[in-house]
Amino acid sequence: MTSLAEFKQAPHKLLVIPGPIEVADEVLYANAHPSMSHVSPDFVPVFGDCLRMTRHVVSARRAPLSNFASEKSSCPRKVAANLVQPGENALVLHSGYFGDSFTECLETYGAKVDQLKAEIGAAVSQEAIESALKAKKYRIVTFTHVDTSTAVLSDAKAIAATVKRVSPDTLVILDGVCSVASEELRMDAWGIDVVLTASQKGLGVPPGLSILVASPKAIKVFESRTAPVGSYYASWKKWLPIMRAYESGKPAYFATPPVNLIYAYHASLTTITKKAPLLEERFQLHRAASQQIKDTAAALGLKQLALNPAFAATGMTALYFPAGVTAADVLPKLGAKGIIAAGGLHAAIKDTYFRIGHMGITAVDETRGDIQRVTTALNEVFAAK
Amino acid sequence: MTSLAEFKQAPHKLLVIPGPIEVADEVLYANAHPSMSHVSPDFVPVFGDCLRMTRHVVSARRAPLSNFASEKSSCPRKVAANLVQPGENALVLHSGYFGDSFTECLETYGAKVDQLKAEIGAAVSQEAIESALKAKKYRIVTFTHVDTSTAVLSDAKAIAATVKRVSPDTLVILDGVCSVASEELRMDAWGIDVVLTASQKGLGVPPGLSILVASPKAIKVFESRTAPVGSYYASWKKWLPIMRAYESGKPAYFATPPVNLIYAYHASLTTITKKAPLLEERFQLHRAASQQIKDTAAALGLKQLALNPAFAATGMTALYFPAGVTAADVLPKLGAKGIIAAGGLHAAIKDTYFRIGHMGITAVDETRGDIQRVTTALNEVFAAK
Repeated sequence: MTSLAEFKQAPHKLLVIPGPIEVADEVLYANAHPSMSHVSPDFVPVFGDCLRMTRHVVSARRAPLSNFASEKSSCPRKVAANLVQPGENALVLHSGYFGDSFTECLETYGAKVDQLKAEIGAAVSQEAIESALKAKKYRIVTFTHVDTSTAVLSDAKAIAATVKRVSPDTLVILDGVCSVASEELRMDAWGIDVVLTASQKGLGVPPGLSILVASPKAIKVFESRTAPVGSYYASWKKWLPIMRAYESGKPAYFATPPVNLIYAYHASLTTITKKAPLLEERFQLHRAASQQIKDTAAALGLKQLALNPAFAATGMTALYFPAGVTAADVLPKLGAKGIIAAGGLHAAIKDTYFRIGHMGITAVDETRGDIQRVTTALNEVFAAK
Repeated sequence: MTSLAEFKQAPHKLLVIPGPIEVADEVLYANAHPSMSHVSPDFVPVFGDCLRMTRHVVSARRAPLSNFASEKSSCPRKVAANLVQPGENALVLHSGYFGDSFTECLETYGAKVDQLKAEIGAAVSQEAIESALKAKKYRIVTFTHVDTSTAVLSDAKAIAATVKRVSPDTLVILDGVCSVASEELRMDAWGIDVVLTASQKGLGVPPGLSILVASPKAIKVFESRTAPVGSYYASWKKWLPIMRAYESGKPAYFATPPVNLIYAYHASLTTITKKAPLLEERFQLHRAASQQIKDTAAALGLKQLALNPAFAATGMTALYFPAGVTAADVLPKLGAKGIIAAGGLHAAIKDTYFRIGHMGITAVDETRGDIQRVTTALNEVFAAK
């Protein structure tokens, strides 16, 4: 009989792409939980705890609407279909690939979208945001907290402050897929209206859950909409009662939730919110791990996509290849050393850079030695050039 | 180090609700696979194999479009948003709860829906289908092969034949969430255009994957649509190239697939399609298990919702409580004997019946003794009345 104490995941290469990330044994063991009914009195409080712990991770005392859907990318749909009525304006702050997909998703559900596009390696300036908000009335402003394609960090606190000052009715939507639990994020204090994220990055769970936390203001905007919701399975009308029921300890049925992934999410959230190192210290450990990677890269003459440290994510690093070096040179060499990194994703410069993720246990659990392994491998691969 | 040979799931009550079902140790172990990149050369063929084995399970030689989304219920969205243009007609054959949700989903995406509603315990007659098809031109006819709320089986072969004869251009859409791998289903031979299903029932995987197989004719209808697809993340335009790439051995990216669930799905499909008992024998074993449950119920004077054997599913059984008996009497008593069954789901009669699932390893692996445990518990609980 396997118990958690006996369970150890199979040996494998170190996965340091910017998601999915390395997952702890206790989380994988929870993902192998025996089949449970989604309305079982044993499962209901597990689901409820996930909602409460999710709120804690994003520093929101307000009730989260956490809609467990599929691919992380189903997240924008939950914003596009519920918060923007056809013909309403949306402003997308573009710092990489995911600004384009958010735009396309909003347009699918009838929003009129304007994009503010930062140069590659930068985030949109507060001045540009302010003038756009003064020129037109927007229902929502969306931005990617960390764009996985560029490792560019946007200043969530400053963006929210600018929006509140210039256009207080506009909702601030933060795509936190690559930032939640790895970058500092204070939903309440900063005035973020929606945080959407996914399970397979900083939250340290296998891919398959998308999570959304909405402020009371966002829910009020949803409840006041006159146009029907453009999506059936992403409709907050369907999910709000379900989530409220589970959080209050009662089962409810709209669609069968991914029970095992929710057990895995519960195991990871329990570590993140209830065991040392706690959240604040985790952010600090992420910063320290990030600095080690970035210092090593700098010493090797590798240039970050981020144009300056203010734009550099702490959960991942994107690095240009030196002249004459390609992904075909670097990624297999890292792979041969047991390190799986990622190639480029931003279409315009796809083949000129690579990406390293340092989120979750890789950044937080120093006893694993993951960061040391990565810096050693980088030194061996690039010093040899 | 845990190996598959060492892994055993924790002891638990026997889950015999009509999904999620009991899952084999090798499937749960696969769900605890170490983190893998969704574009890893090790993962790509696993995903490709899943597409090929899915095609085998539904007896379709034609290329499946298998879109791995989240809750099973995201499946109808993939039909509603891709195959029916706003204003087109859809005919929903209603044999329970899931006829209503399919209707609501189709209407969300602009379809004009007519419902043919069978009485509770029956499926819609071929005569009713024929006259409806003669009265109006429908883009699609949808039906629930087994409606989980009533355990009513619809005659997929006869429905497809009627549609082909009366309205050959109309697409036949089979909701196989509660039938695939537990009920006989021959997509090619019967002329079914779309089979949609989910992971947590006959396919024997934890919940979280929805799977869709489309015929070339259905894909042609999709490709000829003039209206934009009403959904972004369920759009076949987005997923077809991804699925074709993975099946041809190349990675592609639109959204991160639920990697661990796909490993679990691969493990279960390998058992279903490559190990004894093979598919045909599995159907036979499901019929035998079903007969044992139904015979036991009949001997106890418990009446099925299914009005006659032709309407009775083989993967599950729905039984009315005897007069004066309620769910509050029966389900806890079964639970005390380690058997988790389900209450009613059909709104009109919710409190008058309960449901037992007998799919997957519970029906197929006689060495587990699951069916024996269920019949024994039924005898003890109801004989005592």
